[in-house]
Formats: sequence, structure tokens, C-alpha cells
Amino acid sequence: MATRLPETEYGERLATVRERIADSDADAGVWFGATSIEYLTGFAHIQTERPVVLCVTPERAELTVPRLEVERVQGNPRIDAIHHYFDYPGGRPVEAAASMCREMGAESVLADADGAPGTMGYTGPPLSDFLDVRSQSWVPRMRWAKSDAEVALVRESAKWANLGHRYLADLTEPGAHPATVSQQASTDASRAMLDTLGGRYVERVRGSGPVHAGYISAHETALPHGHTPNQRLREGDVLVTGASANVDGYHSELERTMFVGEPTDEQVHYFELMLEAQSIAIEALGPDVPIADVDRAVSDYFEEQGVSALAQHHVGHNIGMDGHEPPYIDRGWTAHCESDDTEYDPEDARMEVGHIYTIEPGIYTEDAGYRHSDTVVVTEDGFEMLTYFPRDLESNVIR
Amino acid sequence: MATRLPETEYGERLATVRERIADSDADAGVWFGATSIEYLTGFAHIQTERPVVLCVTPERAELTVPRLEVERVQGNPRIDAIHHYFDYPGGRPVEAAASMCREMGAESVLADADGAPGTMGYTGPPLSDFLDVRSQSWVPRMRWAKSDAEVALVRESAKWANLGHRYLADLTEPGAHPATVSQQASTDASRAMLDTLGGRYVERVRGSGPVHAGYISAHETALPHGHTPNQRLREGDVLVTGASANVDGYHSELERTMFVGEPTDEQVHYFELMLEAQSIAIEALGPDVPIADVDRAVSDYFEEQGVSALAQHHVGHNIGMDGHEPPYIDRGWTAHCESDDTEYDPEDARMEVGHIYTIEPGIYTEDAGYRHSDTVVVTEDGFEMLTYFPRDLESNVIR
Repeated sequence: MATRLPETEYGERLATVRERIADSDADAGVWFGATSIEYLTGFAHIQTERPVVLCVTPERAELTVPRLEVERVQGNPRIDAIHHYFDYPGGRPVEAAASMCREMGAESVLADADGAPGTMGYTGPPLSDFLDVRSQSWVPRMRWAKSDAEVALVRESAKWANLGHRYLADLTEPGAHPATVSQQASTDASRAMLDTLGGRYVERVRGSGPVHAGYISAHETALPHGHTPNQRLREGDVLVTGASANVDGYHSELERTMFVGEPTDEQVHYFELMLEAQSIAIEALGPDVPIADVDRAVSDYFEEQGVSALAQHHVGHNIGMDGHEPPYIDRGWTAHCESDDTEYDPEDARMEVGHIYTIEPGIYTEDAGYRHSDTVVVTEDGFEMLTYFPRDLESNVIR
Repeated sequence: MATRLPETEYGERLATVRERIADSDADAGVWFGATSIEYLTGFAHIQTERPVVLCVTPERAELTVPRLEVERVQGNPRIDAIHHYFDYPGGRPVEAAASMCREMGAESVLADADGAPGTMGYTGPPLSDFLDVRSQSWVPRMRWAKSDAEVALVRESAKWANLGHRYLADLTEPGAHPATVSQQASTDASRAMLDTLGGRYVERVRGSGPVHAGYISAHETALPHGHTPNQRLREGDVLVTGASANVDGYHSELERTMFVGEPTDEQVHYFELMLEAQSIAIEALGPDVPIADVDRAVSDYFEEQGVSALAQHHVGHNIGMDGHEPPYIDRGWTAHCESDDTEYDPEDARMEVGHIYTIEPGIYTEDAGYRHSDTVVVTEDGFEMLTYFPRDLESNVIR
């Protein structure tokens, strides 16, 4: 049961960026992005108007944080010193961070941005007002291929997503309110996860549970990013579900197209087309496969079947610390890697062992949407399904 | 009962930016930011790796969206034409947006950013590769002073937050799990809001309810951004609660420090200090008041009382479409407005009618945190409390 990222992972990640610093003529690496800081150090915070800044030299890793994050960092074995400003804007965070870098002997740095992001109204000076700054984007690329320990956390997430999804299906009946069913399934599955894991559960959420399960229903399923309508379930409704769980900051994605009562012939037709498209995509996964080919295989199938006009998006994306991560399974991925828009290489156009993809081709009519999503990791031998709620029609009809 | 922003608001907002375009020598305004696009047009979307781009000329407003958002925009009376690319990165969104601008006769634009934000792994070319681009940040500043219609939505949000908070208090007892209490209160209050508003409810959330109520408990309250621990409630626990509701995209903030069972003398002492600090801040609010003065009044009081070392953040921030918005009640606010870090003017250092502040000074000991938060709007006469759950000790002890 994997519930916490092992300490060794942070050591390896910091070692990797330290090699890159050593290979450069810069004194340090600097990060403003919350996810990158968490990836390198395990210090998790919500990005707000109060910047957090990490500086890594060959010898040390130090953080500048607002006063209210100090205790959260204390005891973190990856952080050698904590600096703080009181609050923003009075505390002048970028100046405080520049002082930290200078005290660490870093005058020339490679940073993930030239200053803090404009989240929630933040505005402030560029870091280059104080230091010699060039850019790097190491961490987002390092996150593509997951280690075995990271895959294990996503696998654990998929377990609790499955429970949430089971509860969701069990609570669904004509007359029930979709919001209430969603929230009740989330509550029950969160409670089961918390009670099962006990002291091994890593606290990650505030005022809610680690499992989220819910759905959009009826006409709203016709929109890939639909909302939950204020309308009780009726026989004949299509549901597009979603379930996930937060396991030490890692996520999975499980979605199913379900039917309240017997589906019509048309609904069965679109469901089976979608299911076949998803199977085509899953079976195409494997190391060295050109990522764009998987999207093209699905789009060829849709064209063959005469439903191209009902597709509204590509096949999927990576998932891990973020809900959507590159690489994306998109027919334009190879051209993207070769373009000036990215620092990617031609080999970045192919799947690697440890990539974790959501596979979720969809079909959308005027009345309803049809989309499953599964979370699948690329392995030496091909792939492993991490989510496992049954995909077939019979298992997804609620009678 | 205000549940939907009136159509006239969008007309006024678009008229304001059109005046600024007319006053410039540019042909159009361009926006990449999701909140700004929603503010101007009412089209709400989640910002992902798929950019959405709005172009406004004196005559027209047009959007470039990914294929999956097309149906969500159709029928929006503010949008004169919808352009789409299929998906990212194959669809080349910034090129598509530049073509849209050119077709609208806009070669020279004032944009909120020179390209789309790097959300969820997006990377792409700057808009200035295709058009003459200069920067503007009109909308974030326009959002400071809320109209009467916006205040009415936040007032409605505060009502449902109050119900969620009442349920939270009623479900709290020794032995209960804080995650379960939080999720159950959210479920019950969401259901009450949905059933009360019926067809007047504006769909805004996916697979969950519009009301969120929850708390952090015990030792985690010592951290201003604490998490919910996996530990059942015990007599003597301090709770720091939070409740809000989404009303057509607007939010309020209600937080209370509560006690499970009889508080100790020390707990009462810190509670009363916090409560007095909050009262000092609330009573200082009003039009033309220097914003920094309110933070200074609280910090002077904490110093007088010998608890300065237990403060970890400033007094509060604005709230509306985002959870945190400028201006912030921070002793450095005046200097911030006068600095090169912002385009603000000296008069931006003062409160205006329609500013909606959270007032939430806090005290944090090694064992527990003490913080209420109320949402308060500045009026011609002074202020109006939008949240109204009782603030006194007796109402916040759960026996």
C-alpha cells in the first residue's frame, strides 16, 4: 500500500537539478512555481498572491516563504534554511528572495520564471532587477516519466476512485438529485479511505475529503466540460461520471458513461463506438510509440464510422501531480515537439516507460455525451490499466 | 433574491473597455485570462492548456475557443462570432486567435498578456509574433469596486454559507470525523440551496454542490493554511471553519474559531483578543480610508497586547469572482501603490464604495489558531456586514 512518496525520490530529483546547475555556468536554480517546488522538496502550498521561492545550489536548498508558511516548512529535511517576509505586498517577496540567493552565493541563476506568477492579483518586480537571471524549464519535463514510486501512488489513487465510483453507481436512481448523489459518494468513499489508511494517510486537503466522485447528467453531458444541472435524475438520462482521490498529491482519472434505465438503440450505438475507440487507443499504447499516432488511430476510426463531426477533442493527456500534464495525445504532438514553441526534442514525440495517460476519446451528439476515461501507465511490455471499473455497457446501465 | 448577474452589467463592462480602446491608438483589446473573459462576456471556462482568446473592437466581440467549448458559447448574446481550433497543440491556438483579430481589422492590439498563460503545461508562441501587441491590465482594476448587482450576489452567497456553517456546527460532536462533518454539511446546504432556488440556480459546478463548508481541527489550526487531520474530534479541540457558496461565479468568505466543549482560560484569552482585533478592523472600514491603516490598527493592538509574535499575516483581502483579490489590507499597501511594481495611483491606496473585504486577523500559538473571517462591503455610510454568523464566544462553543 503506497501512501507516501519515499524520501529517496526527493534526493534523486534534487540531484538531477544539481547536475544541470553544475553543467551550466550559473550558481543556482530558482523556482517560483508551486508544483515544481513541491516536486523538488515535498513542501506543498497553494499558489496565491504570496510568492514562495526556492533556491538550490550544489550544496544547499533554501526557501523564502510568507510568514504563514514557516511552520509548514519546519522539519522538512530537504530544506536547509527558511527565510520569510511577513506578508504581501508589504514584505517585498522578490527582494527577500534575491537576498536569500545572494547569501547563498548565487548572483547568476537559472529560474523557472523571471519573478512570481500574477496569481490572485500579485504584481511585483522581475527577479532580474536584482540578479543575473536566465530561464530553465527543467522540472515540468522531469515530471513526464513517473518513477515506480509515483506510479504506485497513482495506482493507490485509482483504488479509492473505484470505491467512490461504485458508491456513485449504487446511489444513483430516478428521482435522486445528481449533486446529492455526487457529494454523498464522495463523503462515503473519503471516510472509507481515511479509516482504512489511518495513520498512513497523508493530509492533503482542507475541509473536505480526499476522494471526489460525481457526475454531470442529462443535456449537460453534451458539453465535454458540462456542469451538474439542478434537475433530478430521470429514466433515460445519460451520465458522464468522474472519480479521483488525492494520494500524497498524486491523482488518477476514472470516468464512465452510464445510463439511468434502459438505453435507446441510438445511445447503445454511440456507447459502443466510443468504447471501441477507447480500446483502439489503449491497445496502441507502449514504449516508443509516436504519441500523435494514438490520436490519429482514433480519428481514423471515427472517420470510418462517419462520426468525425461528433468528436470535440483529442484522446487524452498525462496525469500525476496536476490533473492535466503534457504530453497530450494529440495528432499535432510531433509537430509541436519539432516547433519553436517548445524546447522539446524529436524523441519527446514518443511514449516512454512511466508516462501515465488518460485515455478518453469522446462522442457528443446534440442530446448527450459519450466518454469513458481510464488512467493507463506505459510499461516495458506495453501498458498497465491503473483504473479498473468495468467498461462494458451492461456494467454501466443502472436498473 | 439575486442569483444571476443582470445582462446590463456585461454591456457596461464592454462599454468601459471600448472607451479605453477608443482613447488609445490600438484597434482592439485582447484577453487570454479566464476570469477577465468571464467578467467581460459571461462566458465561464476553466483555464487549462487549451487557450481561449477574446478580441473586442469598438463594434464587435469575438472569441477563439477549443472545439469542446463551442456549444457553451453559442447563444451568448455578447459574442458576435465564435472561432475554434480543434485541440491543443495541433490546433495552434495563438495563430487561430491572431487570424480572428486580423479578420476583425485589428493589427494593433492592447492585450492582457503576450500569449496564453502556461497553465497545465501549455507552451506556445507570443501573440506579438503575429500582431502589434502592447499590454493593458484594465479588467483586474475594474473588478475592485463591485456594482450593486455584484454585491447582491455576494450577499446571496453569504446566506448559503451561513446555512452550511449552521449545519457544520450542528453536526460537530466529540468522536465525529472532521472530514465527514465537513462533507455532510456541504451536501445538506447545497441541497437546500438547489431546492430553494430551483430554476433560478445558475449551474456553475461539476459533480459537487454550490456550497462548501468545512473545517481544520486540533493541531492543524496552528497553521493558517492547515489541512484536515485524519483524527476524530475530541473535547478541547479548536476548530477553524470555512464556508462559502458559488452564486453565478461570486463568492463570500465566512470563518469562525469554534471550540469542541468548554475552552480553557488560555483559549478564551486568545479568542477574545482575536475578536477585538477583528472588531477594530471592521469598525475602521469606510470610503476614503487608507487601506494600510486598517492593518496598522490591528498590528498596533496586537503590539499593545504583547501578541505581535503570534500574528502571521495581514488583516484581509478583497473577494468576488476570485477567492483572493486586490486590494489587500496590508500595512505596505500605500507604498505598493506608489511603487514601480504596479500601475496603481496614489488614490488606489484608499477604500472605495463597493470594495468587498474579508476581515480576518489571526493569532497562532504552538497548539492552535484563532481566526474569524467576515465578508464586509464598503458603503457610502461606512460598511455593511455580508456574513452574519454570530461572532461571540458563547455562540462558538459546541457543548
